[in-house]
Amino acid sequence: MKPINVGLLGIGTVGGGTFNVLKRNEEEITRRAGRPIRITTVADKNLEHARKVTGGAVKVTDDAFAVVADPEIDIVVELIGGYGVARELVLKAIENGKHVVTANKALLAVHGNEIFAAAQKKGVMVAFEAAVAGGIPIIKALREGLTANRIQWLAGIINGTTNFILSEMRDKGLPFADVLKEAQALGYAESDPTFDIEGVDAAHKATIMSAIAFGIPMQFDKAHVEGITKLESADITYAEQLGYRIKLLGIARRRDNGVELRVHPTLIPAKRLIANVEGAMNAVLVQGDAVGATLYYGKGAGAEPTASAVIADLVDITRLHTADPEHRVPHLAFQPDQVQDIAVLPIDEVITSYYLRMRVEDKPGVLADITRILADSDISIDAMIQKEPGEGEAQTDIIMLTHQTVEKNANAAIARIEALPVVCGKVTRLRLENLQ
Amino acid sequence: MKPINVGLLGIGTVGGGTFNVLKRNEEEITRRAGRPIRITTVADKNLEHARKVTGGAVKVTDDAFAVVADPEIDIVVELIGGYGVARELVLKAIENGKHVVTANKALLAVHGNEIFAAAQKKGVMVAFEAAVAGGIPIIKALREGLTANRIQWLAGIINGTTNFILSEMRDKGLPFADVLKEAQALGYAESDPTFDIEGVDAAHKATIMSAIAFGIPMQFDKAHVEGITKLESADITYAEQLGYRIKLLGIARRRDNGVELRVHPTLIPAKRLIANVEGAMNAVLVQGDAVGATLYYGKGAGAEPTASAVIADLVDITRLHTADPEHRVPHLAFQPDQVQDIAVLPIDEVITSYYLRMRVEDKPGVLADITRILADSDISIDAMIQKEPGEGEAQTDIIMLTHQTVEKNANAAIARIEALPVVCGKVTRLRLENLQ
Repeated sequence: MKPINVGLLGIGTVGGGTFNVLKRNEEEITRRAGRPIRITTVADKNLEHARKVTGGAVKVTDDAFAVVADPEIDIVVELIGGYGVARELVLKAIENGKHVVTANKALLAVHGNEIFAAAQKKGVMVAFEAAVAGGIPIIKALREGLTANRIQWLAGIINGTTNFILSEMRDKGLPFADVLKEAQALGYAESDPTFDIEGVDAAHKATIMSAIAFGIPMQFDKAHVEGITKLESADITYAEQLGYRIKLLGIARRRDNGVELRVHPTLIPAKRLIANVEGAMNAVLVQGDAVGATLYYGKGAGAEPTASAVIADLVDITRLHTADPEHRVPHLAFQPDQVQDIAVLPIDEVITSYYLRMRVEDKPGVLADITRILADSDISIDAMIQKEPGEGEAQTDIIMLTHQTVEKNANAAIARIEALPVVCGKVTRLRLENLQ
Repeated sequence: MKPINVGLLGIGTVGGGTFNVLKRNEEEITRRAGRPIRITTVADKNLEHARKVTGGAVKVTDDAFAVVADPEIDIVVELIGGYGVARELVLKAIENGKHVVTANKALLAVHGNEIFAAAQKKGVMVAFEAAVAGGIPIIKALREGLTANRIQWLAGIINGTTNFILSEMRDKGLPFADVLKEAQALGYAESDPTFDIEGVDAAHKATIMSAIAFGIPMQFDKAHVEGITKLESADITYAEQLGYRIKLLGIARRRDNGVELRVHPTLIPAKRLIANVEGAMNAVLVQGDAVGATLYYGKGAGAEPTASAVIADLVDITRLHTADPEHRVPHLAFQPDQVQDIAVLPIDEVITSYYLRMRVEDKPGVLADITRILADSDISIDAMIQKEPGEGEAQTDIIMLTHQTVEKNANAAIARIEALPVVCGKVTRLRLENLQ
């Protein structure tokens, strides 16, 4: 059968991995896809590097716009990243009737609605397995594997850099700043790690998953995004004593009045499987009404794990490209006219449990004052640690875990606690999810 | 759009679950599939029960052969089980040009080659996500999600009954027979539990996964099948002391000279995520050359988890049924003319590590004799426990973990150890996999 011709835009880490895996497993992939899938053109600004990686076997150009216009190309793989030229190239490729594979979560989370509408209009596929959790086929699981279910919520460790940092902070008892430096030295964190450590990357991925889980548009601008930069080692230790681990979770949850979409450090019970996902690994837990909880685990980044997802998309498109567009798997899991405009709830309306740590004067009645405020706000206490004051100290730490409440209610109670004269400084507040 | 009409054969636990989930999530499923999927006819021997479950909303008959011949039916869902009439019905449905969804692992593992050849000839789909690991979309992951990879091995906890029994034996220190009775009382084990506890059910599922992972025919008759009935509590305890858990694993591994396909109790390091899959849960670990290790976890049985998989197949077929057959996902992941006749290796040729427990006289030189035999056979020792003899006892236990070796080599060495006059009775031998 006629081969499928692929134009590769960007041959950095993932592009190089895609080129190599396609070559190494050519026979295996062809046996599955039914026809050869070959990269015929590579566009990269660094021509010398592109020639070196491809070994002169394919056409190399620095003009990506020529590739998306090339009538010989069936599928364009966009691995440039960012929102700028990548958006233009993807829209041009679609306009020219080409199928697109992309690993660009930022682009899809921010401009996905525009891109999928354009693709729908032209009857082409835009596949993006590589955009979330690297080689783990989580997009496929949500879009095709769990179609029987009303998905209730999902929670994912979807950023390897922050998970590595949190694992190291816990294992070695080191502060965030030290571990970040170590992660940078090891190549687990970029020299500018902002997108990772501030939770933006995880929020891009959570946004994409929320869309295909619930059949809603991409609403990245409504996501609540909180990173791990302010997390203190003391809280990791206290959480551990209470039977919890702290993970940066991307959470999407269906509520009666909307959808929660949030990324923040979260206490989760240490005995849950997902609490034991360590280092740079990723995992996504999905709760469906029929299937119950399912978990998907693997490497969330790196050249070949991400290439695995890019190539799976290439095989899917190769298998499906002759099908009439109405009978393909819809881009966002739901038929395009069936996407519902459900609002993302403001963070104030989110329902969750809390971990509270406060510094208090070691005086009689302090605990009574605090628990009275919580009781007045209808917030139940689930567990508590009160430390003995250190030698010669007049202050001590109280740590509390609460039951679920609406966030604005928790914030109001915390403000009242902070106003107590016996409470010193701010209350440290982390969210807690039981994931059951 | 015109609805898809489904004929349901058998409305027991899974059939009832399928009926209920399709009804409850009708709107959600239609939004995904693009058209309504409705069960129009149910065939069951127990007409009264069938009428009760369906509430008079659909046609009920005790003649399943009439359903597979009904020109109004687009897809037949076979949930009868067994190799007998189920095989005839599935083949008849295919002959009549109907797509088939089945949860019948026994049928596919034993008669799959015949069934898929017939389906290929008629250009119809036979989908079987529900046949392995219930609601976990592992067939989809192997067949579509990991197509970039040369899959190197997979190992699964794919029988909930035995995993529940093993978890209870470990937690409560009870012997197999007692826990089996408890499992039967709780409904986790059938009144005749042979297929589960002897490993046959797991071997059916491992056979199916081996076919789609490696592109080989179903070869259930070549699988090595060992259950958990002979497992002693003492070995669970010793394994724990050495940092291992014992799980009934279904393993398929690619070797240079063939494929390993085996089910047996296996020691695995306790720190692996899969070692912490407890109770009736299922999990499958898949190692691909590009993606590395990925894990899939969830409920492996039950009405609604299995229904989740059945309905996912219905949606897939609904989405794909107008595609030309050559461009659908191949039944066994690889194109039918690309299935390779790779032999399953006899168990003697399998390469694995071992846990050995032996009862020995408490005399000088015993350990030297045993370790000499292992060294002569080129078997390295990885860890060892030698117990002090109990008060007034002249014998004691030695437990050893070995490095990898070919099974026939291990067996020969064990026979020589058993022949030593200082060794009492048989050596207990369990296989051990590091899963890395």
